[in-house]
Parts: sequence; C-alpha cells; structure tokens
Amino acid sequence: MDKILRINMGNEGGPQASEEPLGDYAGLAGRGMTSAIVATEVPPLCHPLGKYNKLIIAPGMLSGSHAAQSGRVSVGCKSPLTGGIKEANSGGQGAQVLARLKYAAIALEGKPKDNTLYKVVINKDGVEIIPDNSLKMVGNYDLIDKIKSEYGDKVACISIGPAGEMKMAAATVAFTDMEQRPTRHAGRGGVGAVMGSKGVKVIVLDDSGMPTRSPKDPEKFKAANKEFVRGLKKHPITGQGLPSFGTNILTNLINEAGALPTHNFQTGRFDGAGNISGETQSKIMKSRGGTVAKGCHKGCVIRCSGIYNDRDGNYLTKRTEYETVWAHGANCCIDDMDAIAMLDRLDDDYGLDTIEMGAAIGVAMEAGLAKFGDGEAAINLLKEVGKGTSLGRILGSGAAVTGKVFGVERVPVVKGQAMPAYDPRSVQGIGVTYATSPMGADHTAGYAVTANILGVGGTVDPLKPEGQVELSRNLQIATAAIDATGLCLFIAFAILDQEDTFNAMIDMLGAFTGQDLTADDVVALGKKILDYEKDFNTRAGFTSKQDRLPDFFKNEPLPPHNVTFEVKDEDLDQVFNW
Amino acid sequence: MDKILRINMGNEGGPQASEEPLGDYAGLAGRGMTSAIVATEVPPLCHPLGKYNKLIIAPGMLSGSHAAQSGRVSVGCKSPLTGGIKEANSGGQGAQVLARLKYAAIALEGKPKDNTLYKVVINKDGVEIIPDNSLKMVGNYDLIDKIKSEYGDKVACISIGPAGEMKMAAATVAFTDMEQRPTRHAGRGGVGAVMGSKGVKVIVLDDSGMPTRSPKDPEKFKAANKEFVRGLKKHPITGQGLPSFGTNILTNLINEAGALPTHNFQTGRFDGAGNISGETQSKIMKSRGGTVAKGCHKGCVIRCSGIYNDRDGNYLTKRTEYETVWAHGANCCIDDMDAIAMLDRLDDDYGLDTIEMGAAIGVAMEAGLAKFGDGEAAINLLKEVGKGTSLGRILGSGAAVTGKVFGVERVPVVKGQAMPAYDPRSVQGIGVTYATSPMGADHTAGYAVTANILGVGGTVDPLKPEGQVELSRNLQIATAAIDATGLCLFIAFAILDQEDTFNAMIDMLGAFTGQDLTADDVVALGKKILDYEKDFNTRAGFTSKQDRLPDFFKNEPLPPHNVTFEVKDEDLDQVFNW
Repeated sequence: MDKILRINMGNEGGPQASEEPLGDYAGLAGRGMTSAIVATEVPPLCHPLGKYNKLIIAPGMLSGSHAAQSGRVSVGCKSPLTGGIKEANSGGQGAQVLARLKYAAIALEGKPKDNTLYKVVINKDGVEIIPDNSLKMVGNYDLIDKIKSEYGDKVACISIGPAGEMKMAAATVAFTDMEQRPTRHAGRGGVGAVMGSKGVKVIVLDDSGMPTRSPKDPEKFKAANKEFVRGLKKHPITGQGLPSFGTNILTNLINEAGALPTHNFQTGRFDGAGNISGETQSKIMKSRGGTVAKGCHKGCVIRCSGIYNDRDGNYLTKRTEYETVWAHGANCCIDDMDAIAMLDRLDDDYGLDTIEMGAAIGVAMEAGLAKFGDGEAAINLLKEVGKGTSLGRILGSGAAVTGKVFGVERVPVVKGQAMPAYDPRSVQGIGVTYATSPMGADHTAGYAVTANILGVGGTVDPLKPEGQVELSRNLQIATAAIDATGLCLFIAFAILDQEDTFNAMIDMLGAFTGQDLTADDVVALGKKILDYEKDFNTRAGFTSKQDRLPDFFKNEPLPPHNVTFEVKDEDLDQVFNW
Repeated sequence: MDKILRINMGNEGGPQASEEPLGDYAGLAGRGMTSAIVATEVPPLCHPLGKYNKLIIAPGMLSGSHAAQSGRVSVGCKSPLTGGIKEANSGGQGAQVLARLKYAAIALEGKPKDNTLYKVVINKDGVEIIPDNSLKMVGNYDLIDKIKSEYGDKVACISIGPAGEMKMAAATVAFTDMEQRPTRHAGRGGVGAVMGSKGVKVIVLDDSGMPTRSPKDPEKFKAANKEFVRGLKKHPITGQGLPSFGTNILTNLINEAGALPTHNFQTGRFDGAGNISGETQSKIMKSRGGTVAKGCHKGCVIRCSGIYNDRDGNYLTKRTEYETVWAHGANCCIDDMDAIAMLDRLDDDYGLDTIEMGAAIGVAMEAGLAKFGDGEAAINLLKEVGKGTSLGRILGSGAAVTGKVFGVERVPVVKGQAMPAYDPRSVQGIGVTYATSPMGADHTAGYAVTANILGVGGTVDPLKPEGQVELSRNLQIATAAIDATGLCLFIAFAILDQEDTFNAMIDMLGAFTGQDLTADDVVALGKKILDYEKDFNTRAGFTSKQDRLPDFFKNEPLPPHNVTFEVKDEDLDQVFNW
C-alpha cells in the first residue's frame, strides 16, 4: 500500500492511468485517506457530477493483512445527495485485494469526453482501461456473471448498476463478497452516481501472485490478533447475536424500545415487527436451506451475513440487513419478509442504497403513490427506478427530492440524506449524530444506540437530552478512526465493553505499522479526519443551521413514548467543539 | 392601509380572520412589509409548506392612490424553491384594490386540518372564508370565469392554478389585470405553492364603496405626479420602446449583445431571434387584431402589455414578456412565436413561473427528454406539469430539481432559482446580482443590464469585472426601495437617466406620506429591506458560498464573446458590505 492509482477519465487522448507515491497522504488509509484527498483536492463548490469531483476508493490500514475483520473499504467524494463530503464504506473482498495490489487509493478523476462505458482491470502487471458498451444498463448480478466468465472466479469487483449509470443520487458502489456476488455496498450519499459520471462501470481486481501484507512485528501482531478474536467471540453481540440473527437482531430490540420508525416516522412501534425480526428471518432462511452465519470477507469471525433463498430454495439475496428490513419493511409498514428480500435483491442489482430507497418509498407512500403496507406496490415502485422512468428517477434521487417533488412535509432527512432505522426522538443520542455528522443522517457515524438502548459502553437515557452530545461526540471520533483502520465497525461492541479487546486492537495496529500507538493516538486520528470533513463542508457553504433535524421531530411527539427531540441547538453546536 | 388581515387557516374550529393594527410594521409597505413580517415571524428553518411559514401579500406605499405606475403588489414567504426569504411582486389590479380596502397586508398563516379548498372574499363589510372544493384543480382562466359569474366583473382576484394546489416549487400567485384576466403573476420562488399549502385557492377583492387613497399634501402630490408622468413619457424606453414593442423589445438588443442565453446557456446568440423579437411580435399582434400598448393596472402610462390573439383572431394570452419569450424561446431554441404564446398561456393557466419553466424545459432538453427547437414537444412537457404526472412534477419543481433528477450538470440556477434572460458571462453586472441577491437568481433584484447594455444610468463594460459590484449594489438598494413603493420597476429607466424624474418621484412619495423625504431616505429604506432579507437567509443557513454562480459560468467561455464570468468571489462578498 505504497502508491495511489490515479485514472484520468477526461484525458484528451482517452482515459489514462498513472501511479504516484503517497507523498503528503503517507500514513493515511480508509476514511482517513478518502476524506484527506477529497478535502485537499476537490473544490467544495464544484458540481458533484462534473470534472472537478473525484471518486476515491481506499482500503483500510490493516486491509490485506491477516487481521480479523479488516475487510472494510472506503469510498469518498463530494456527494451528489448532500452536496457535502462523503465517505461510504463497505465490506466484501475489495479492501483486501486492493491492499494486496499495493494501492492505498484509487482516484477516478476528470470527465469523460463521451458516453463510452469502461471497465478497469487491475492485476499485478498493471492497469488496463477497456471500453465496453455491452455493459450499459446491466444489473450488478448479470455484470458480475459476465466478468466471472471473462476473468474467472478469483477476481473481486467494484461496480455500479443502472442507478449509477443514470447518476442517481441514491446510487451505490457495489463490492463482491466471498461468493463473488455484488451484495456489499458503499451505500450512502450517491457515490455510485459519481462513479457513473466518470464512465466507469466496473473495476476488476485480480491479486493473483501478490502476497498478504506483513506486519512490522509479526509475533506481537499474531498475539494481539488472537486476543482480539477471543474478545469478539466472547462478547454476546459479536459472539452470538450477530452470527445467529444478523444485524436484524435489532428489529425486536428497537421495536421494543419504541424507536423503530414506522409509517414514515409517524410512530415508533410496528405491529408487524415479529414477522420481519431477525429471529423470524433466520427461521425462514434455515427452512429453505439458506446459510446463516457467513462473513462477507475472508478473516471475518463475526459472520453476520448469510444466504436468503426464495420459496423454491434458490438464492435470492444475502441475509438482509436490519437497516434494509427496517427501511423497506417497518418504515413502509410492510411485514412480508419475502417482499423485503426481493427489494433488497433489486437494490443490490440496480445499485441503490436500501436506506435511501426505503425512506423515499415511505415518503412516496405518504404522498399517496402507494398504500402503506403494500409490498407488491413497493416492488413496483423500485422497478420504476431500475427502468429509469420519471417516477423512478424521482425516487432514485432520494427521499429529500421525492418529498420536494410531491410536496410532502414529513421528510426524514438531514443534509438531504435519509435517516436510518432509529427514531431520533426515542434515541436522542443517535439524533445528535444524525444532526451533526458531516455525512448527513448516518447511524454508523456515531452509533449512540449502544449506550442509549443496548447498554454497551455505558448507559444514557435514550428519551432525555442529557449526555447525548458527549456520547455522540466520542462515538463520532472513535468511528472516524475505526473507519480508517479497515476494521468492521461491529468490533465497537466488544472494544467499548471489554478493555482487553480494545487494547488488543491498539496493539494489533501498533504491531502492524511498527508504531507505538496509544488510545490517544486513535482519538487524535478520529479528530483529524472529522476536521478534514467539517472543513470541506464549511467551504461548501454548510453552517450550524444544517446541523439540525427537520421541524417535525421537534413538533410531533412520537408514540409510544410521546417524546420530541429535545437536544438544544446550542448543545448540538458543541459536538465538534474540541 | 392601516391594518393587517391575518387569516389562520389552521385554527381548530376552521379558518379564522382577524384584523390588527400595524404596530411595529407601521410605515412599511410592499417588499418592505413582506420581508419585515417574514424575517420577524417565520422561523428560518421551518418547512416552507408547513404551519410555521406565512404568505404575506402587501400593496405598495402609493398603491390605491392616483400615482402613476403604482400597481405593484408584493408577495412574501419562505421560499419552497430556494429555502430562503422570498419576495415576488406583480402588476394587475390587486395592489390598488387591496390598498383601498385599507389592508397594508394579508397574512395567510397556519396549516389546514384537511384538504378542503377555500376562497376568501373581502369587501368593505369584512372577510368571508368559504370552503369550495368545486374549484379544485381548476385553471386560473376558468377559475376567474367562475368568480366573475358569481361576484361580477368589478372584483380583482388573487389566485393559484393547479400548480399551486400541487405545491410545486415553480408555482405562482396570479393577479387579475384590468380585463379580469389572470395574466399578472408574482412568479418567482414558489409563492403559489405556499398559498396552496394554506388551502386558499382564490382571494376575491371587492373595493366597491371604498375611496381612492388621499395624499397628505394633495397639491404637491398632483404636481409631482404630473412631472413624474412627463418624465416617463419623455424617456425613449418608457415613452416609446416599451409601449411599442413591450418588454420583448429586448430580444434583438440582448441577442445583438451576445448575451441571450440560448440552447440552455451554451451560446449567447440565437439564430431565430428575429422570429421572436418584440418587433415581429407586435406585427403579429396587430395583424390579428390584438391590442398593443395596454397597461396591466389603472394609472399605467407606460403600457408595455397588450393582447396576443391566435391565428383565428381569438384571445390567446397577453403580450408575452421578454423573459417568457427568452425562457420558452431562445433558451430552448424555439423560434415559433405562437408556440411561445401558447406556453405563456398554459403557464398563466396552471399558475407557473415562465422563467423557471423555460429553464426547467431547457435542462430537460439537455437531458434528452425533447429536442431543442421543438415547440410542440415543449408544449407537451408543460401539459405534463398541468396534469401533475411524475415528469410534470419534476419540471414543476424547477430547473434545479430537474437537473438533479436527470443528472444534468449545466443547470443555470443560484440558490435553486433559475436564471433569467441575460447570460452573466456577457452581462457581468447581472451576474453579480444573480449571485448575491437574497432572492436567488433574479434580474429584477438589481438590473445591471441598464449600464451594462442599455447605456442607462451610466456605462459599465459588460464583459469585464470592473465596476460590476458597485453597479449591482446600488441597483439592489434602489430596487428594494422601489419594490416598497408599489411603483413599477420600469420607472427606473427614467429616474436613472433624468434627475427631474427622480426628484419628482421623491416629491410624490413625500407629498403622499407627509414626510420630508430625500434620496438618502430611499437608500436607507433599500438597505433596511435588504438587511432584513440577508438576516433571514443567514439564520436559514446561507453563507457567502451560496452567493456564487454555478461552476460552468467560470469554466465554459460563452460564444460569441468567448468570455467567462470573471468577478472574483471576494468581490462578490463586498456587495452587501455597507
């Protein structure tokens, strides 16, 4: 990981690749790398789909090593959805393969001269940029089949579906998983639209002949990794809950807490939650011969994923995530697990963010375009997006645009990005994160559900404003740092609760890089990344006024607790005051 | 004009009207009144279609008097298009009738409990708020016919078409002209959507039995008005150009200057300009028995309007304005005057801003939805808006949303509002106004075309950045003040060039109000209004970063002069620095 691959798609004589040393970016990785490059090189007021924007793809610090859970890859750019900086990360094989190919980052730059669609093929011998218009408007699943038939079943792919080609603001960048399926996505903020605007359909990565990355201190690294894995297996969430029921273990928990946004954020509890819970989902999966407890990349010991087969026992999609089950399910009052799995499959195939799409369909339902609870209608709406009809393009532009176009007032977005699966009135800590994260509404940016609901890393009353700002601040700092390591965020449960596991992580990072790291270094790294991001957004015209939840969270009490969001504006403004 | 009429559409027992004295708003009128109320009473972060927004309608200082050109009425609110403060003003009979009914402002407030549509009837005996769902989705022309049959041909109407009911961000508030036709519109910023969100279809104003407003010093007023009229008739633009050819006299002038945005702002000169010029238009109008040189309200001596008949000699629309001829014509490469007139008629009937719609259709053409130059296709696109199809709702949301939904990069907007008919690269002074006006891109906010192109009020080279900031600043200040007087902005040509006419205006204002006014007072008033507006926008989260033109004006030189917009960012930031 000692070089950056820059691909100028706007080069006069056709797309051109060049490599350069890390220079000032040395030592950065993952979100640290993407946010540093975007903040340094992208003019904050440029058009997100224009020649001045850049799409940066960067593996994490530990990617490509034997470290457990080190499979996250970051994608960064100026977001077409929010207009601010964006980092969206993903699992899958991409991070590890990219790291073994020694790239600390790929940067897609410039604006193509015409509408030619390209595939980029990278292996140990170099980079090829090949025009291939036969791939136009091909879904991610068919695309990967084509690539597999041409390049074999060892390559990893980074791709966009039709949504990215159509430059929709809800478009994702897909990463193949261990079975070479396009099920892992850098989902948020329209990163797929930026890849589409660069004219790149797929990046094919072949790391044949490239070695696993070696730690500076192999003995210390091996020992720390072992202790780290022991800690993950010991913690009830990462050791039992996630492998057994996937992230969807949360449906029952969050519903019970009265914090499951239902009926487009009109209530916090869903009558049909039991039909779409992780427990129910796992039963269905097992009964149809699907796998539970699968990792999305090599070296995963949590294994929160799995295979969801259809009624005939054929593969339909991966174990659908909690966020997706909520967005397409509870939020739209749909309690049909098969309908939700089909929506997930379509999202993956079109290359769409499931959170943004569920929220957009919820807003469309509020506008009267379909009935709440009608799974078939939701599937039909999503198919409009895949076809790129006018209605589909509205929905594919996300919840904020859908609300604007149909004149809907209850639109759950911050900075134009849809809120995930926790109502900020019943989980006020996550409300602080939604409001203040430079990413727009994003649960992963500072997952206060931990102390608010799960009793992880302490306890803070979820219904009261007290303590939420500090909680969100600390989590946002820690998360930014973890997003730079390439480690899966789910390690947070164990490192927040178990000091030994936290220390093992620090030791592992130190042994790998050869640095003498402390917890303070991690905090400093997190702050540095957030400073880059806040600075970009400030220069893009964001102020504290954009760090606010929509009106209705302050004015409409949410059943069953009948609370409003009560964290004061002036307290929100202290989140980044360090 | 000694009271404010507040209508609470969200009142628990049904809509309720109440009157109150002016209080702190005493002395304010027109844009001064609307911007003061909005800035004082509307929370800047509220949803524009929600209960906290207010729609303010205010006649000018001189409205309802015998002052020439005193027929402008202001409409203010938080804009659904820009998210900032909005004042859109209009001609027609509304200002005078409202003023004679003694209302300094009408404020529509609150949020209706259901979807009932109301008409509000105001006469000397009071206010009635009458539910009338038979008016739902009725076009402005049919609506006014219905009102006429019920209330006679003396009333003036303030109404919305289907676009306002659908809460489209390009929806206007229509005002009837002297023939009781809904041809005058407070066009910009989606004020019609806010009226729609309040559930008010039409306000019927009957001033029977109410006297003309009297000046404090009748003799001085009469003399000043006489001199003022003499000045207007003497100036070549207001005395000859505008009555003969309407505002469309500009098409040939601006085209000649290479500043007529054509092909969605790709060039500054249109081959077909001669077919749609004011000269050609007037010939067509005369040949079909249409009238030229008509005022839109009593007391107009400029008479820039007229009647445009169809090929069969039947009324089609008013003399289509230059902005409309440009937006639906040159901008979309359409040189068919009849197609443009039909588009104008449809905009008036649906209640849509012709500038925003022309710009949105131009962006849609760039996205490939229709061919540039195809008038019939443009008409069909506009009919989609009237029907409220998904495509129509996109277009009706304006050029910015159209660009976002279809992934178009060349989108000529500032603060989300479409640019009018002067390319800021060839008229750099208007570029400063577009960039910095609190209203978003708006030519009327500071019409630098005067000194840049027309040689009115001095001369400033239109292709160079020098002098543009000062020019725009002075014009923005003067315009804000004129927008408070209720005087038509076209008086600016005469008062900028003729000191006698300027003094006559000051005298007329002084004699009417009984104050001893000077030019300094006018400047102070203009600054005060702009301060209200800037302050609202700052609290709504706007910074200097929103005071910028889109990228492409700085990067794409505009033929035929091949210039880019060259006013520096730091100079733009000095416009409001007084």
